[in-house]
Amino acid sequence: MNKQHIINNAEYFIHDEPYYEPSANEVDIFNSALAENIPVLLKGPTGCGKTRFMEYMSWYHKRPLITVSCHDDLSTSDLVGRYLIKDNSTVWQDGPLTTAVRNGCICYLDEIVEARKDTTVVIHPLCDDRRILPLEKLGELLPASPDFCLTMSYNPGYQSAVKDLKPSTRQRFISIDFSYPAENIEAAIVHQESKLSMQQCEHLVKLAHMTRNLVGNGLEEGASTRLLVHTAKLISRGFEANLACKCGVANAITDDEETKKLLHEMIDTVF
Amino acid sequence: MNKQHIINNAEYFIHDEPYYEPSANEVDIFNSALAENIPVLLKGPTGCGKTRFMEYMSWYHKRPLITVSCHDDLSTSDLVGRYLIKDNSTVWQDGPLTTAVRNGCICYLDEIVEARKDTTVVIHPLCDDRRILPLEKLGELLPASPDFCLTMSYNPGYQSAVKDLKPSTRQRFISIDFSYPAENIEAAIVHQESKLSMQQCEHLVKLAHMTRNLVGNGLEEGASTRLLVHTAKLISRGFEANLACKCGVANAITDDEETKKLLHEMIDTVF
Amino acid sequence: MNKQHIINNAEYFIHDEPYYEPSANEVDIFNSALAENIPVLLKGPTGCGKTRFMEYMSWYHKRPLITVSCHDDLSTSDLVGRYLIKDNSTVWQDGPLTTAVRNGCICYLDEIVEARKDTTVVIHPLCDDRRILPLEKLGELLPASPDFCLTMSYNPGYQSAVKDLKPSTRQRFISIDFSYPAENIEAAIVHQESKLSMQQCEHLVKLAHMTRNLVGNGLEEGASTRLLVHTAKLISRGFEANLACKCGVANAITDDEETKKLLHEMIDTVF
Amino acid sequence: MNKQHIINNAEYFIHDEPYYEPSANEVDIFNSALAENIPVLLKGPTGCGKTRFMEYMSWYHKRPLITVSCHDDLSTSDLVGRYLIKDNSTVWQDGPLTTAVRNGCICYLDEIVEARKDTTVVIHPLCDDRRILPLEKLGELLPASPDFCLTMSYNPGYQSAVKDLKPSTRQRFISIDFSYPAENIEAAIVHQESKLSMQQCEHLVKLAHMTRNLVGNGLEEGASTRLLVHTAKLISRGFEANLACKCGVANAITDDEETKKLLHEMIDTVF
Amino acid sequence: MNKQHIINNAEYFIHDEPYYEPSANEVDIFNSALAENIPVLLKGPTGCGKTRFMEYMSWYHKRPLITVSCHDDLSTSDLVGRYLIKDNSTVWQDGPLTTAVRNGCICYLDEIVEARKDTTVVIHPLCDDRRILPLEKLGELLPASPDFCLTMSYNPGYQSAVKDLKPSTRQRFISIDFSYPAENIEAAIVHQESKLSMQQCEHLVKLAHMTRNLVGNGLEEGASTRLLVHTAKLISRGFEANLACKCGVANAITDDEETKKLLHEMIDTVF
Amino acid sequence: MNKQHIINNAEYFIHDEPYYEPSANEVDIFNSALAENIPVLLKGPTGCGKTRFMEYMSWYHKRPLITVSCHDDLSTSDLVGRYLIKDNSTVWQDGPLTTAVRNGCICYLDEIVEARKDTTVVIHPLCDDRRILPLEKLGELLPASPDFCLTMSYNPGYQSAVKDLKPSTRQRFISIDFSYPAENIEAAIVHQESKLSMQQCEHLVKLAHMTRNLVGNGLEEGASTRLLVHTAKLISRGFEANLACKCGVANAITDDEETKKLLHEMIDTVF
Repeated sequence: MNKQHIINNAEYFIHDEPYYEPSANEVDIFNSALAENIPVLLKGPTGCGKTRFMEYMSWYHKRPLITVSCHDDLSTSDLVGRYLIKDNSTVWQDGPLTTAVRNGCICYLDEIVEARKDTTVVIHPLCDDRRILPLEKLGELLPASPDFCLTMSYNPGYQSAVKDLKPSTRQRFISIDFSYPAENIEAAIVHQESKLSMQQCEHLVKLAHMTRNLVGNGLEEGASTRLLVHTAKLISRGFEANLACKCGVANAITDDEETKKLLHEMIDTVF
Repeated sequence: MNKQHIINNAEYFIHDEPYYEPSANEVDIFNSALAENIPVLLKGPTGCGKTRFMEYMSWYHKRPLITVSCHDDLSTSDLVGRYLIKDNSTVWQDGPLTTAVRNGCICYLDEIVEARKDTTVVIHPLCDDRRILPLEKLGELLPASPDFCLTMSYNPGYQSAVKDLKPSTRQRFISIDFSYPAENIEAAIVHQESKLSMQQCEHLVKLAHMTRNLVGNGLEEGASTRLLVHTAKLISRGFEANLACKCGVANAITDDEETKKLLHEMIDTVF
Repeated sequence: MNKQHIINNAEYFIHDEPYYEPSANEVDIFNSALAENIPVLLKGPTGCGKTRFMEYMSWYHKRPLITVSCHDDLSTSDLVGRYLIKDNSTVWQDGPLTTAVRNGCICYLDEIVEARKDTTVVIHPLCDDRRILPLEKLGELLPASPDFCLTMSYNPGYQSAVKDLKPSTRQRFISIDFSYPAENIEAAIVHQESKLSMQQCEHLVKLAHMTRNLVGNGLEEGASTRLLVHTAKLISRGFEANLACKCGVANAITDDEETKKLLHEMIDTVF
Repeated sequence: MNKQHIINNAEYFIHDEPYYEPSANEVDIFNSALAENIPVLLKGPTGCGKTRFMEYMSWYHKRPLITVSCHDDLSTSDLVGRYLIKDNSTVWQDGPLTTAVRNGCICYLDEIVEARKDTTVVIHPLCDDRRILPLEKLGELLPASPDFCLTMSYNPGYQSAVKDLKPSTRQRFISIDFSYPAENIEAAIVHQESKLSMQQCEHLVKLAHMTRNLVGNGLEEGASTRLLVHTAKLISRGFEANLACKCGVANAITDDEETKKLLHEMIDTVF
Repeated sequence: MNKQHIINNAEYFIHDEPYYEPSANEVDIFNSALAENIPVLLKGPTGCGKTRFMEYMSWYHKRPLITVSCHDDLSTSDLVGRYLIKDNSTVWQDGPLTTAVRNGCICYLDEIVEARKDTTVVIHPLCDDRRILPLEKLGELLPASPDFCLTMSYNPGYQSAVKDLKPSTRQRFISIDFSYPAENIEAAIVHQESKLSMQQCEHLVKLAHMTRNLVGNGLEEGASTRLLVHTAKLISRGFEANLACKCGVANAITDDEETKKLLHEMIDTVF
Repeated sequence: MNKQHIINNAEYFIHDEPYYEPSANEVDIFNSALAENIPVLLKGPTGCGKTRFMEYMSWYHKRPLITVSCHDDLSTSDLVGRYLIKDNSTVWQDGPLTTAVRNGCICYLDEIVEARKDTTVVIHPLCDDRRILPLEKLGELLPASPDFCLTMSYNPGYQSAVKDLKPSTRQRFISIDFSYPAENIEAAIVHQESKLSMQQCEHLVKLAHMTRNLVGNGLEEGASTRLLVHTAKLISRGFEANLACKCGVANAITDDEETKKLLHEMIDTVF
């Protein structure tokens, strides 16, 4: 086997248990899908814990996790691999998907709808019972390692029609819907990550809910759990809560002057 | 002959008989077309068995099968081949179509309408009585091996006008129309693949029919047989059927909240 | 002279007389244009015999025929040639047009309107009395061999305005209009190619005429002679004519359910 | 001086006097502009003699003529030059414009409005009193040879607004307007080139005028002098004039069935 | 470690204290975010001091500052790095982001909304608690140095909807809003930089306020502090203030004749 | 220092005093801006003397002038530099901007609004007090030579909104507005360059004013001083003034038949 193909899996392993609070039965569903080699799609808003969930499952199953942030310019070659010139000869270098397929990693394609069509199509033969990756440039059919698992995610809230998944892609995945955690769980998460007092964390979660109710009325998306953690950390360092919320929540989620004013009034109510 | 041209056909052969339940006379038609060197077009919805049919025919005729998933960025070079630099010289590497033409394989172009115009045009001289592939970059006319056979597929249900095949391409193919299998056959397939009880499988097929009736009213496509198999596998592992259907069917085929609610109600009716 | 420039003309010669039934005086016009070095444009629907006509003329004049299927991505370099890297140096490789110009071949640009503007422009100096091909990348003006002849074709029936030829290109060609052969000639062609009984062939031609009358009312193009030959071959192998026509004619030319139903009714009338 | 820069001018010289009938004072204007180093723009319809005029002026002044047919994909590098890899090193190769600038040729940019903006901009420093060509990739300012002369042409009749020349380009050129030759001159040209009887040539010119009156009413452009010569040659070879006009004029300039019918009626009137 | 990876940090250090007048608590917020590894977004109009603020913070913390001006064509490779060919082998060269991640620099992405989607996406894993940069082409996960800090900026005033940040990017940053300095501070800045009399500087600031009130009524943006400094420098050199303001303010911010006239009248009022 | 970086400045120096007639205080403003390192923007119509002004200032200050004609396809690499392959290794080659920055030249970006966004953005750090050019591909921050000066120009008359400069670019430049010279100065310029009698030159300027009044009513731009010089040269050689004006003015600035007729009538009035 070519040396290029061996990765140092160590760096892709999650060594410490990530802090993760399950919301429903997402862990069970994922485990079953993994056992049955069924690809999984995670749907839900920004910063609600999809990435953390994948880290948790990777740690739990002790399988390396390879995450690819998808975008408009991600080509098939970026995923599958390409030839490089080394010492006057071409050497093949695996892309992250091929690395995952070959080494039995969990491959997580984040924000899959941002990717170009060729990216979504290249995973098709991996997602049915063939479980192969055609490496056309190598003229090779790579069978997936038994441990290989494919997951992908997107946020259905702000996808335009043109960026929808093709049915022929969708119908290869079962889907787990994510949402923001329940209020008490979310406050516990913010507290755990920022060490801010539980009471203050509850106020932050209350504020977050107010912003989430504005979605569609001037806001594209409400404050994520991640933003609450940022803000809580600023408060923990001694910043006034009102100011921290303006920097960490209001100004972070909108540029619109009227919406910003409304958010500032909400902050004044809570803190 | 150049070493680059010899493929290890072994990996393209289907060694075990794929499970395939014929719906009508598609096997006979395919056999006749194969004998007469007439290219074949398979039309039908996602996940209704077109790929499985090709695997079955490949196994039946003991001819290697080379499948290409077409997409927006698939170029002629991806199909036909390209020059690579090796040891300070350029070496030609056959693409999957050329490999199929040279070695007498069945070449299956999946979702052909996704391909760019140059892809569809490059097959023209292979699809009439010339049966040649012009390798322009080699300055060579490659005559097809007698065993070479060209098939392609697409889903007429969700093609936009701009993605229609050009008449000059269409008129080189006879067409076999595929649809979802009859209810009893579909239930048998799901049972065979998931080992779920026949009765449960019949319920799943009933649910699938309900979703297929929604096509055009909020759904782009109904649940495929493949999704039913996924869902059946989850139930087989002990998941509650109602929950499995929500993950494996409803949430997998729509992001629209209203349609999802309607599908959940259907699931509540069936399970 | 550089070795790269010598082609093995043998493979471009048509060795056996192609079966061709002239419809009008197209052979005479072509011969005169050839003698006068006037480029020729063939216009007509898909599969009515333009390519076969070119093969026949190539065989008749014993001049090699180089056919290029034009498409959106065909660049000037694809036609004229490009540099390749060989043993640390660049080597020029003629494209098919340059090969034809240098070796006195008939060059046939099929579906010229699909090509990009640069393709149509590069032929301009070959199409007036200069008869030269500027090889800009070689810094060379290549005079055409006396036997070189340029022809091109397109289907005026389904060209959009944007894909029209530029007047400065059109006005360098005389034009021969092709249409489907007369009924008795078309039946004879189908009979000759499929060995199906003359009577059955006449029925097929009758059906083809019915489809051609639908053009503009749901069909982009009627059934071509080539499709009739395909269908006749299926019937010859023992397939029921009605079924063969559905696969080989109706389903092959439309995806529209209503049009398909109408075509099936026509087939039921004829067979 | 680098060997790459020396061209064999011989092939760019016009050795025999081209047949050219002046229409007005275009020869005098061109000669004055040449003497004053003023760039010249030729405007006029397709096939009215602009290219022939350039060949005549090239022959008259015994200066080599380098013609570039412009198109959408013509890049600055195509005009100016590029680096090639030869024996593991890069070698610069002049493009046609640089060759002309260096060697004192007449450079003729045919259909300049088809070129991309970068093409038209690269000629700016050549078109004012600087008369230099910046070879940015060589880091060199190339002064034009005293004999270098720049001309360009386009057809104002069918340019869309988007393809107009930029004022900053236009205002560097004086303009000579071309039109079809006067009737008697055009008949003489057709006679001279085809050896068809003068009377027949006059009929052809009469027909051409009828088509030119249709411009804007179904025709984008009337029959050019070049098409008349083609048609006259067919008649000279013994073809019936009526048939030759249909192939060489009517079908060559339109695809529209109604316009074609009208043109055929015109032909029936004249011949 | 590869030599390519070591940068001469010296040139990225800010050695002399930049002149910076804080407007509010932006320094405190930035320091807290830096301590908590929270990425920071600076929002505000052109030339109001965002870049100067970053230089000041870089000097204050004695961390090298790497600034990237974002634009439409900035690719992931421009940020992350690419392979170069050196002595017949490929050598990896870090891009500015990778250099910053590896060496613990402050990375400042100026006008981030101008960048393509792939640029904004590549920073995602750096902006949550993973703090890693996947170097896909090296097959490596680069952990950020503890001193690495990511900031970015844009001007919310003239962003079109299409150029908005994606929520999944926004929600990784806390936001500091910048505006023009208060009048007395702005006059002091202009005085400090130009040595123009404080009184004249106050007049310039008064003029700037008049232009800023025109935003939305013919002006896209008012005069920046930077333009005032330019103008003050011209006046310091003995230019008449009225003329200097026309060149340095009015004509610099508009091409519209009416708006220019209005601005000239304002200038006549002030000077 | 790398040999590639040393340019032969000699060819970029203006050795003879260019003929330039100042219109207002543009020379003083430019000199002050140069002394204060403030970048300068020249605005004004085609052919009114912006380029000549730059040549004059270059000669006056004895600093080499590097002019770049901007266009749609001008990339950052074209300005900044790129790697070339030489003898199996990559060698960096400075682009014209880098050459100017390194060697203390005046860099003049002509028609800057034609350039792509990345071009305008790359100059930002050169245009504030940083005065550095980040050479990202070299991983180097190049400080500008004290003599380096950046100027750019465009014609505000025919810029579309999409091609406007970004405010963040504009606000780094002071602006000098150019217009056509006063009548007597313009006549003197035409006389000086063409040696045509002063009286005739005055007539030409009168004609030019008539065309400039038509701008917006059929003409995109009036006749430039440059066109008058061309026309005057033709008249000097003995051409009839009326004819020379038609070629050199009317037909050069319009293709529209009605506008051309109107211009011809104007010419008949003047000559």
